[in-house]
Amino acid sequence: MPEFRQNMVSKEWVIIATERAKRPDQFLQKKEGKKALPHYRKDCPFCPGNESMTPPSLFSIEKNGAWSLRVVPNKFAALQNHLTTERKHEGRFLKADGFGIAEVVIESPLHNPTLATMDLEEVRNTVFAYQERYSVLSKTGRIDLVTIFRNYGERAGTSLEHPHSQIIATPIVPPHVRNPLYQSQLACDTFGDCIYCGMMEEERRQQVRVVDETDYFLALCPFASRSPFETRIYPKTHRSSFVNLSGEELADFATVLQNTLRRLHVGLNDPDYNYIIRSAPTEDSNVKYHHWYAVIVPKLTTPAGFEIGTGIYINTTLPEQCAEFLRGVKIG
Amino acid sequence: MPEFRQNMVSKEWVIIATERAKRPDQFLQKKEGKKALPHYRKDCPFCPGNESMTPPSLFSIEKNGAWSLRVVPNKFAALQNHLTTERKHEGRFLKADGFGIAEVVIESPLHNPTLATMDLEEVRNTVFAYQERYSVLSKTGRIDLVTIFRNYGERAGTSLEHPHSQIIATPIVPPHVRNPLYQSQLACDTFGDCIYCGMMEEERRQQVRVVDETDYFLALCPFASRSPFETRIYPKTHRSSFVNLSGEELADFATVLQNTLRRLHVGLNDPDYNYIIRSAPTEDSNVKYHHWYAVIVPKLTTPAGFEIGTGIYINTTLPEQCAEFLRGVKIG
Repeated sequence: MPEFRQNMVSKEWVIIATERAKRPDQFLQKKEGKKALPHYRKDCPFCPGNESMTPPSLFSIEKNGAWSLRVVPNKFAALQNHLTTERKHEGRFLKADGFGIAEVVIESPLHNPTLATMDLEEVRNTVFAYQERYSVLSKTGRIDLVTIFRNYGERAGTSLEHPHSQIIATPIVPPHVRNPLYQSQLACDTFGDCIYCGMMEEERRQQVRVVDETDYFLALCPFASRSPFETRIYPKTHRSSFVNLSGEELADFATVLQNTLRRLHVGLNDPDYNYIIRSAPTEDSNVKYHHWYAVIVPKLTTPAGFEIGTGIYINTTLPEQCAEFLRGVKIG
Repeated sequence: MPEFRQNMVSKEWVIIATERAKRPDQFLQKKEGKKALPHYRKDCPFCPGNESMTPPSLFSIEKNGAWSLRVVPNKFAALQNHLTTERKHEGRFLKADGFGIAEVVIESPLHNPTLATMDLEEVRNTVFAYQERYSVLSKTGRIDLVTIFRNYGERAGTSLEHPHSQIIATPIVPPHVRNPLYQSQLACDTFGDCIYCGMMEEERRQQVRVVDETDYFLALCPFASRSPFETRIYPKTHRSSFVNLSGEELADFATVLQNTLRRLHVGLNDPDYNYIIRSAPTEDSNVKYHHWYAVIVPKLTTPAGFEIGTGIYINTTLPEQCAEFLRGVKIG
């Protein structure tokens, strides 16, 4: 029997279409899908020796006299940092200059690893760089939201092979972000505590959607997963912003992030994915009602007219089965 | 200079990234992208002679003793019509049986035309069937929203070649639909009239984004287009629901819909697309604040982590240039 499930925070619904449910292993990606990459490419702007192909580093981590991670301004940024934030009317329409800050985190000097396969130290460097830049960007005064994300593979919208993440800081909190914040605030006004903390308590009690648990984090396939193998990583201690993680928590996040990506990599044979870190707006970095998390969306299905029209995603897998599958993947 | 633009109703923002703007003709699809289809396939469930491969017709249009259009229940429906609409708690989570009605409109007995290339009479039959079924479904009492949509091509999420549309009726109005309704209601409470009527007045004054205008409809590329060549068709007379169109208006809608799809088909060489008819919830079919419209989204780009995370779409084309390009396409 198919089933509607509601996202507790956004109040959006999904349809878990069990009648045409696919078993998790039916999403296994084809071996021939991805070609092996070299560890270096002469024409790659992110490979060592080609530093002049990018703007100068904003931040870097060195090892044995060479860089092992660099953060650089995005040369092809959709937003620019020298503009105003003023809203302007054009007749009845509202617009603003495209002020914003866009950066790229080059995660490794090597061209061919991925977060799932690189050394844990490089993943730690990556999340450390996220926090460093988040901290700097959120203090500029004109930035309301810092979004950290990673597009992996062509189906996830990237054409650059070299391992990298992106950070985009905007002077706008859009409704897509604000509406769930309003809902979690309302829940907090009603029940007196964080709706995410309550959800995690429930998930730890039910256990059926939990993928992994570490000292500081819980990885799970959400009750109202929009697509197969959607996985979220929540800090177990209440934190509204990614910027507030301690060093120990950050190191643990690197471990659980890599292990979760490795489960997907091994279990589904290297699928494309997007992940996003959903942190509070910069001025709400210490609030009771928001709880930051990372969401990983493997690109295994195509949203179509019904999803675009209603926001109701049809998911042909049971989140409980996906979680069970991921728990069972041997990641060595 | 890049620019933020706001959708007047949903209040969501887009970034028009003019620095890396592409010219409209750079979205021309490759000729070899689509293979020519036969007009009949023995194994196609929608081709004549194979009627037993689908459930019996709910509605059909005959011509010369054979069917020229059929509406049938969706055999692989994500929702089922014999279930309850009761909401149930599972711990803190909320769910409901997957009650709903899913139908398929088989638009032609031929396997290989598309809405852009078929006879106008078939397009008229199609939109007439939409209205017929919309009317029946909205009167069942348990249906709150009727969504009519069409997925064309693999990138738009369909695998069936035979020309068809879909209708899904749900017992739920999701936030994705409700939030913009609430915004347009608020605008109506504030200014006393329909925000869409005002927007159209502005578009007709500015003219730069208008693609086509007929007796009853205006086709345009929206000010805050989320992706290249997004095109919307609005009735010029205020109507909150698609069900309220007169026969004359419906015939005119068939013409403007086909002409718009033909502009995309000829101008961009047959791109994949989704379209959706956004009509009011069934209980709001005669309200001042909502104005139904059709939105056509050609699948030319891939939303990535930033779009998933923020709902802010980065569009590398100017809607004004897309409109100018589409206006200039010769459609015979």
